[in-house]
Amino acid sequence: MEVKVLTIKEDILGVNEKKAAKNRERLNEQRILTINIMSSPGAGKTSLILQAITGLKGKLRVGVIEGDVASQVDADKVHERGVPVVQINIPGGCHLDANMIESALNNLPLNEIDLLFIENVGNLICPAEFDLGEHKRVILASTPEGDDKPYKYPLMFTEADVVLVTKVDLLPHLDFQMDHFHKGVTGLNPDVKIFPVSVKTGEGLDQWFSWLIDQAKELKARPARR
Amino acid sequence: MEVKVLTIKEDILGVNEKKAAKNRERLNEQRILTINIMSSPGAGKTSLILQAITGLKGKLRVGVIEGDVASQVDADKVHERGVPVVQINIPGGCHLDANMIESALNNLPLNEIDLLFIENVGNLICPAEFDLGEHKRVILASTPEGDDKPYKYPLMFTEADVVLVTKVDLLPHLDFQMDHFHKGVTGLNPDVKIFPVSVKTGEGLDQWFSWLIDQAKELKARPARR
Repeated sequence: MEVKVLTIKEDILGVNEKKAAKNRERLNEQRILTINIMSSPGAGKTSLILQAITGLKGKLRVGVIEGDVASQVDADKVHERGVPVVQINIPGGCHLDANMIESALNNLPLNEIDLLFIENVGNLICPAEFDLGEHKRVILASTPEGDDKPYKYPLMFTEADVVLVTKVDLLPHLDFQMDHFHKGVTGLNPDVKIFPVSVKTGEGLDQWFSWLIDQAKELKARPARR
Repeated sequence: MEVKVLTIKEDILGVNEKKAAKNRERLNEQRILTINIMSSPGAGKTSLILQAITGLKGKLRVGVIEGDVASQVDADKVHERGVPVVQINIPGGCHLDANMIESALNNLPLNEIDLLFIENVGNLICPAEFDLGEHKRVILASTPEGDDKPYKYPLMFTEADVVLVTKVDLLPHLDFQMDHFHKGVTGLNPDVKIFPVSVKTGEGLDQWFSWLIDQAKELKARPARR
C-alpha cells in the first residue's frame, strides 16, 4: 500500500518537473522574468506585489498569477491596478503546480509582460516541493511569525533565492531576534539574499526592486537560442 | 491514474477516521479533554499552550503533543515547565494524523493528564482534513495575518469549535477590521466561539481558560460506559 502511494507521488513529481521545464523554456523565449513568491498565510505577498506594480512602473511591465484555495480578493486588488492577472483557485489543494501555471500562461498577454509574479498558496510547507517553471524563488518571512521559522520549516528556506523579512515596522513591538533568524536561514542556505522590508514604511523596497530589475536585465541579455 | 490516487486518498482518510475514533474512545475512557490546535506558522500556538500551563495550574493537569516538520524547540519549552510532552517530527509531511497521535498517547502518562493539547503543524490548509480523535478543534488566527483569512482558507474555519484571534495587542499598528473577520468566520460557522486574546497583555485569556475548564468538567461528568 505504502509503495503504491510513493510510486504515484513520484509520477506526479516527474510529470510536474517536465511541465515546469516546458514553462521555463516558454518564459525564457519570451524573456519574462518569473518569480515564485511563497510564504505562510498573511505574510504580505499581495501587498508586496501591489507595491512592486507601483514602484516598477515605467521600468518593468508586471503580470501576476494569484493562487488561492478560495476567493479572488487578491486578483481583484491587482486588477484594480490595471495589470494583467489570472486567479487560480484550488479547493482542497495546498500548492500550485506546473500544470496550473501552464493554463494561466495561456490566459495572459505574455508579450506585454517583463516580470511575472506567481503568488503561491499561503503555506510554508507544500509549495516548496513543486517547481512551477519560475526563474527565482522568493520566500516571505513575516516578523510577527517569529524568528524560529527557518528552524521549523527548513525545506522552504533551503530552496529560496531571496528571503524578504516583512513587516519590519512591527519589530519594536515583537520579540524577534534578527541575528537568530539570519543564522537559521544562512545555516541552511549560505548564498541566499536576505532583505528586511516594510510595505508600510517603504523600508528596503528599493533594494528589492533593484534586485528584480537586475534579474530582468540579465534575462533580456541572454543570447537567443538557435 | 487519477482514479487510483483518489482511491488511495479515500483509503488513507478511511483508515485515519477509524484510528481517530479509537483514539477518541481511549481519551473518553481516561477522561482526558483533548484539543487540536491549528493555525498558520507563527500564530502563537506554543505561547498560548505555555500560558495555559501556568494559568491552569492547580485546576487541570496539562499534557502536550507537539507536531512539527522539524526541530524540537517547542517541546523543549513545554518540557521546561515540567509538563509531560511528546514531540512528533514529520519531515516531508504537512499535518498530523491519528496514527501519529496513537503513538504519542502510548508515550504519555495518561493517568496524570486532564487536558491534552495537540499542537498541529503550522499550516492553515492540510491539518483541517485529518481527525486526530480530539474532542475540540481550536483555530488561532493571528491579527498580523490580516482579516481576510476565513475568506481564503474556509475549510479550517468551518471545522473549528473555537477561534482565538491572537496578538490583539498589535491591533493599533495593523489594518485589521475585527467586524470583517467576524463576518467571515460566522458566515462559514455560525456556532463557533470567537475569543480575542493576547499572550503579551493577558487580554482574553481568562475567558479561554474558563471555556477549557467547563469542557473538562463536562467530560468528567459524562456517565461511564458499561
